[in-house]
Amino acid sequence: MKMENDSGLLLVLSGPSGVGKGTICKALRERMTNLVYSVSATTRAPRAGEIEGVNYFFKSRAEFERMIAENELLEWAEYVGNYYGTPRRFVEETLASGRDVILEIEVQGALQVKEKFPEGIFLFLAPPDLAELQNRIVGRGTESEESIRNRMEVAKAEIELMDKYDYVVVNDVVDCACEKIEAIIMAEHLRKERQIHKFRKWLKEV
Amino acid sequence: MKMENDSGLLLVLSGPSGVGKGTICKALRERMTNLVYSVSATTRAPRAGEIEGVNYFFKSRAEFERMIAENELLEWAEYVGNYYGTPRRFVEETLASGRDVILEIEVQGALQVKEKFPEGIFLFLAPPDLAELQNRIVGRGTESEESIRNRMEVAKAEIELMDKYDYVVVNDVVDCACEKIEAIIMAEHLRKERQIHKFRKWLKEV
Repeated sequence: MKMENDSGLLLVLSGPSGVGKGTICKALRERMTNLVYSVSATTRAPRAGEIEGVNYFFKSRAEFERMIAENELLEWAEYVGNYYGTPRRFVEETLASGRDVILEIEVQGALQVKEKFPEGIFLFLAPPDLAELQNRIVGRGTESEESIRNRMEVAKAEIELMDKYDYVVVNDVVDCACEKIEAIIMAEHLRKERQIHKFRKWLKEV
Repeated sequence: MKMENDSGLLLVLSGPSGVGKGTICKALRERMTNLVYSVSATTRAPRAGEIEGVNYFFKSRAEFERMIAENELLEWAEYVGNYYGTPRRFVEETLASGRDVILEIEVQGALQVKEKFPEGIFLFLAPPDLAELQNRIVGRGTESEESIRNRMEVAKAEIELMDKYDYVVVNDVVDCACEKIEAIIMAEHLRKERQIHKFRKWLKEV
């Protein structure tokens, strides 16, 4: 699908495990009611109260594997025996309608999305400092020391992936991080590439 | 001078004659007290109340021509027998101190700056519509019809130069335009290129 100049932006919100992606995504959606949340597809069974097309698109394994084969997913992964992925069509149709889409995703998934949708805005949510990140990880109180150490190594590797992103926002105070992301969205809409077609059209009419 | 990653941003505010660059620049400086105004050099005589280094850097013709020859100006032009230009050193020293600089300039000057300082953020202030621009030009009430027609042609050519800029902000309501420019400045500071060095330093320390 060709993206029109008036189409929305795909904002890919990613960052290390435990950095607070979910909290920021939820706060952003409360502040920016026009922002559309990208609904994932999954093969896991619906839980009580979950609604098709709101919480997830629920799929059979056969259907999910067909979507993989036909390149209908911007990214996908298998986790504890179930598939999870981002349907391309939902994202593209929402963008085409002029609305911005937010996709909250871990780092490996974000890099898959970048390959298939490089025109997205890739936003890396970073911890205020590694000690703070360690506190958040340890704070769950359910992991062994070795598991914690592994998580720290993973977090360090993820930060090194920062280089693949467009923007880095430190998650220190939720409202501050949200303000920064809102500024990024506003600025991206004002980029010349997204504005000039209106003026060209208008010059032709004068 | 090498720009450090923690250095300020050079914001180049430009756009067609009569679009309201001066009004927006003044309003922005009132809203963002940290924003430093780029002081021009000129060979014209100081007027009553004008202060060296605040309103202008006042120069002799010989000194100005030396500055041109030694590439000490980011741009310059001759206007009604006097030279006007942007001293590179003032801009670079202010940026190096970590403060953002705003340079308000007509379109040809902005393109000169872009050649010498491509890392600047080039912002095109656009009229809400050409009829509105025409009103503003005619509104001065001092020009002949032909002069007005010429101004319109110039304005159209200037809008075609929009393609050389990073961002386009429509000057409809002053506060709205300022909010957009503030968002652009915030977003540009959050670009990965300006953030990643802090994290690399920090990873080395962990």
